[in-house]
Amino acid sequence: MKAFVYRGPGKKALEEHAKPEITAPTDAIVKIVKTTICGTDLHILKGDVPTCQPGRILGHEGVGIVDKVGPAVTAFKSGDRVLISCISACGKCEYCRKQMYSHCTTGGWILGNKIDGTQAEFVRIPYADTSLYPIPKGADEEALVMLSDILPTGFECGVLNGKVQPGSTVAIVGSGPVGLAALLTAQFFSPAEIIMIDLDDNRLETAKRFGATASVNSADGKAVATVMKMTGNRGVDTAIEAVGIPATFEMCEKIVAPGGNIANIGVHGQQVALHLECLWDRNISITTRLVDTVTIPMLFKTVASHKIDPKRLITHRFKLDNILDAYDAFGNAAKTKALKVIIEA
Amino acid sequence: MKAFVYRGPGKKALEEHAKPEITAPTDAIVKIVKTTICGTDLHILKGDVPTCQPGRILGHEGVGIVDKVGPAVTAFKSGDRVLISCISACGKCEYCRKQMYSHCTTGGWILGNKIDGTQAEFVRIPYADTSLYPIPKGADEEALVMLSDILPTGFECGVLNGKVQPGSTVAIVGSGPVGLAALLTAQFFSPAEIIMIDLDDNRLETAKRFGATASVNSADGKAVATVMKMTGNRGVDTAIEAVGIPATFEMCEKIVAPGGNIANIGVHGQQVALHLECLWDRNISITTRLVDTVTIPMLFKTVASHKIDPKRLITHRFKLDNILDAYDAFGNAAKTKALKVIIEA
Amino acid sequence: MKAFVYRGPGKKALEEHAKPEITAPTDAIVKIVKTTICGTDLHILKGDVPTCQPGRILGHEGVGIVDKVGPAVTAFKSGDRVLISCISACGKCEYCRKQMYSHCTTGGWILGNKIDGTQAEFVRIPYADTSLYPIPKGADEEALVMLSDILPTGFECGVLNGKVQPGSTVAIVGSGPVGLAALLTAQFFSPAEIIMIDLDDNRLETAKRFGATASVNSADGKAVATVMKMTGNRGVDTAIEAVGIPATFEMCEKIVAPGGNIANIGVHGQQVALHLECLWDRNISITTRLVDTVTIPMLFKTVASHKIDPKRLITHRFKLDNILDAYDAFGNAAKTKALKVIIEA
Amino acid sequence: MKAFVYRGPGKKALEEHAKPEITAPTDAIVKIVKTTICGTDLHILKGDVPTCQPGRILGHEGVGIVDKVGPAVTAFKSGDRVLISCISACGKCEYCRKQMYSHCTTGGWILGNKIDGTQAEFVRIPYADTSLYPIPKGADEEALVMLSDILPTGFECGVLNGKVQPGSTVAIVGSGPVGLAALLTAQFFSPAEIIMIDLDDNRLETAKRFGATASVNSADGKAVATVMKMTGNRGVDTAIEAVGIPATFEMCEKIVAPGGNIANIGVHGQQVALHLECLWDRNISITTRLVDTVTIPMLFKTVASHKIDPKRLITHRFKLDNILDAYDAFGNAAKTKALKVIIEA
Repeated sequence: MKAFVYRGPGKKALEEHAKPEITAPTDAIVKIVKTTICGTDLHILKGDVPTCQPGRILGHEGVGIVDKVGPAVTAFKSGDRVLISCISACGKCEYCRKQMYSHCTTGGWILGNKIDGTQAEFVRIPYADTSLYPIPKGADEEALVMLSDILPTGFECGVLNGKVQPGSTVAIVGSGPVGLAALLTAQFFSPAEIIMIDLDDNRLETAKRFGATASVNSADGKAVATVMKMTGNRGVDTAIEAVGIPATFEMCEKIVAPGGNIANIGVHGQQVALHLECLWDRNISITTRLVDTVTIPMLFKTVASHKIDPKRLITHRFKLDNILDAYDAFGNAAKTKALKVIIEA
Repeated sequence: MKAFVYRGPGKKALEEHAKPEITAPTDAIVKIVKTTICGTDLHILKGDVPTCQPGRILGHEGVGIVDKVGPAVTAFKSGDRVLISCISACGKCEYCRKQMYSHCTTGGWILGNKIDGTQAEFVRIPYADTSLYPIPKGADEEALVMLSDILPTGFECGVLNGKVQPGSTVAIVGSGPVGLAALLTAQFFSPAEIIMIDLDDNRLETAKRFGATASVNSADGKAVATVMKMTGNRGVDTAIEAVGIPATFEMCEKIVAPGGNIANIGVHGQQVALHLECLWDRNISITTRLVDTVTIPMLFKTVASHKIDPKRLITHRFKLDNILDAYDAFGNAAKTKALKVIIEA
Repeated sequence: MKAFVYRGPGKKALEEHAKPEITAPTDAIVKIVKTTICGTDLHILKGDVPTCQPGRILGHEGVGIVDKVGPAVTAFKSGDRVLISCISACGKCEYCRKQMYSHCTTGGWILGNKIDGTQAEFVRIPYADTSLYPIPKGADEEALVMLSDILPTGFECGVLNGKVQPGSTVAIVGSGPVGLAALLTAQFFSPAEIIMIDLDDNRLETAKRFGATASVNSADGKAVATVMKMTGNRGVDTAIEAVGIPATFEMCEKIVAPGGNIANIGVHGQQVALHLECLWDRNISITTRLVDTVTIPMLFKTVASHKIDPKRLITHRFKLDNILDAYDAFGNAAKTKALKVIIEA
Repeated sequence: MKAFVYRGPGKKALEEHAKPEITAPTDAIVKIVKTTICGTDLHILKGDVPTCQPGRILGHEGVGIVDKVGPAVTAFKSGDRVLISCISACGKCEYCRKQMYSHCTTGGWILGNKIDGTQAEFVRIPYADTSLYPIPKGADEEALVMLSDILPTGFECGVLNGKVQPGSTVAIVGSGPVGLAALLTAQFFSPAEIIMIDLDDNRLETAKRFGATASVNSADGKAVATVMKMTGNRGVDTAIEAVGIPATFEMCEKIVAPGGNIANIGVHGQQVALHLECLWDRNISITTRLVDTVTIPMLFKTVASHKIDPKRLITHRFKLDNILDAYDAFGNAAKTKALKVIIEA
């Protein structure tokens, strides 16, 4: 089969690869129908993710058709159309039993990282019963690709952890795909204001179309002052960090109101300065989270009932044969305005 | 009347001072029966608290007898025995109406800071109806002095924010008075383990007597390794910071388990390094809080029903005339083993 | 001044009445601009509310202009435009301090019940600082009349207590004004389905326009079967009772899913049968609540940011001189299709 | 093997029975070490539980040693000592994934009900990985038998649903084994008062020894008045129903304070009168629950750390050969003072 393979820092290839086999009774083999590329895949390609070794098929998102199942799989059978969670969950360990699937002791984020992933014609999914979700008849499968990772990430790590509420004021720092996923899902709770902050006017434009009530280009270094002015010098109830660098996290520290929440989504590569000399008496909370994808069933219902349209995140479409072009488009988002790209296997 | 006055960095005096008067209809004048000294008072004396200007009577804790009330005070009358909250709450502003009294727009921590405090024969209490609490007949008033600040601080900022639960594992970094207050009140929720960490063996001894299940002297620089070993390399569900310096906060970052909580109590004077490169995917929460004293009524009930004995925190007793000795004893706690000192007016 | 007065069961009159005076330092006198009629007013007129004695001016909703304030009122002054909460809250008692204003030991629902109300040119508001809300410049005051009682009632007692969530399934039994208020505010949380149940097709029509995803006329006695069929025999996550009779409450018992919530809003005059023989093992919760109006500030923000349009509830407008006509229209809602009627003073 | 078998209403026998076999890959066969009898077993013997047919081996509690496991079981192997949950959980269905194991679509309470149970030398446990719990070395296995059902039932249905808090006031109606389990686990949260209500002075004696702060014999019909007097006419914050008849549930309705919780544990065979005419405006919640046993891991930790001693519930011990005597003792608890009886296989 064809598969997109990481070949070491800076190296990648679409290669012929053996089709995966069932290796544990709880496995399923899924024929990929559609997959996508995540910002994390770009990190891997740069060599920034040490758990992912050369030779690995990348990809941890997608929808497909069950090809085969191991003898212990009971919820799915060959021919079922399924959504693949980016998180593999055994369903049995201490963490899975608290719905913290991200920290499953034998799973978690392993797809396209520690085991081969979804940017291929077929993929092996461990713990299929608790890592796949049935796709109802008539569902728009392209939209559902957004439920593998990006929408639950924005929703769980940003919106739920940030305790967005009716009438509240939210700032989202970073208007890339994951920031926009937080923007879309924040609207489930009817906040009064959602202020989007980014360096790129195009992305801020998109944010306005997606429901942001205000946008702030932080290029002039005055974003904090602007947000404080917008909020009557009170700050925001929820500040969502969706970039992953010290400057944006510290911006959140400066704009959060007393009693507010900073919800981190960004993948950070270095420490940040936590200004406890200012924050120790501000009654705030700061949260971090690797997505658990525990809200996939809830998100399914919101998509089916048209409370959200995940396809708004999709800007480009490619065939698997042209996945290198897809990576080019996604990797040059500033130029191509790519958000999420669909790859059809 | 006699009053203990801050006279600028390093200077203090027991002075004769005019008795306070009612200045707003919601004020009460309270004759102090017993008060105490807080670590924050020492900070003020060093000149570290810019909101507190020379000439200020210090003290924000105590029990007393109502002397006079303003015309709008309805819950108290002359002769009533009362507990004074360290936080003055108007009961009307946005923050008070969410029970976040610490951020009352015209109150908060003002006693012995922005207005004259309790280390005197009389004190003016603003917003008396919502800042004083009636003392039931027969209550042990000395014990109740601990409810003005230190017990709600340990409980609200450490235990409640830290989400201590039956069977959970707690570490408290700092075995001074506020860490011990957290230790006492953590036991309301029956955690399985409470590990106390400090540099001083005497304080760790005290912690063991107060219910700690284990103690770790961090002087050897191996406290993190020790705690990880104690917890099967998992870390603690709740890490409570009760010191206020970068080293102890970073220790909390290293010992918190995935899904756990870091609850900051310490008053910090500088930034700390937040290791988001390690924590971004650990599903943790970090909280800060200035005590709201919203749990005083709950704590009253736990004292009355003997679920907790706050007098265990009291090590020394002085007359107001000897308050300078009290400051000496409290300020040299390593030598005197002082925790909380009672001052009788 | 003119005032609408309850004169004993079945008797009512628009009368000349003395203008109210400040009687406590925390009082304000408010000149009514707009008020409305509540279903409870009809109950009083029938003689069903024993706490309300003949001679009482009715009405507990409205917006107005502060005329005078007592000496202890600090948040308002003459000339301020204000929203009147139907609940008077002292802000000091045990219940007020838990935000359970409905049970304020000296307030609660007293307006137009135990003390004279808002269907007059002027009204005395006790505890003005904590029972009035400032109206921002430019706000639509007619819309805000809906925030005195009906919207917080639907929201607090129905939607919040019912734990409505994104993607969840809600049934509201009773499509009168309060059921419709629950319908409007339930949409803050983006449930997938809101099924409205009533006997009156007109009201169900209105519900569909207000956002119900389905409607069921229960006249044929098959509503339970219909709802179960609609939900794949699972039942609803939230069942909101907005009528106040045994039959509708028991309907909720039959349609609630395992793990679901029954949120009672209805004012009940008799006991209902609780089928614990069916429900004891269903993991459900049942809640009751007299509105606390604690969400008025939140609702203000949702109105200002156009997340909700409360004016959709307003069907008729009258002058205070014609309040008897207003009562006629409101009392014959089946014929007039009245929901809420605005009365201009 | 020997097994205790239900032979139709009023009939029971200790019989020779075939040893169970693995029938699904997720099964385990467990050799019983110790089991016990539940009040529900008595209901079955009377013929009151239609899901349980004659020929069934009873029992849903116990500890044992894994004899064999099916090929899909990964968490346990032959020789492991295990605690058996009374609830079988597939770990995969919608309900299991919300930790509502009681409503597992293919499990739930099936042991000793729809499939053969634990009052035998061996038992087949479906979904072994998510229905068994490993027993740590050195644990007191007799104590752990109480974790199969009775302690989680008292804790989850009574204490957690009843929202017991430090300083709060609790009443438990019914001082039988499950009421006493609620009493023991309520103390995890340090309530100020726990008032135990029963008709039997012996059981009330036991309750006092187990930590009740007051006891009320309700035989004189004045229990409601007594509790109201004890609570300053305020009522209790939490009322736990642990009997299962209308009279005791209605007692809870009468003693619950505004804002309080009624947590039902009792198994009810008929409807009760819910006095909504009194309760509609009291801001209360009523909960029902079939135990999910989701707190077994938490309870394990509280037992290991001596926060609770479950053995206090054990009054009698028998060999499996004498299980008929055990049923006699347990069935005549008024005379024998039996609480829980241990049966050694």
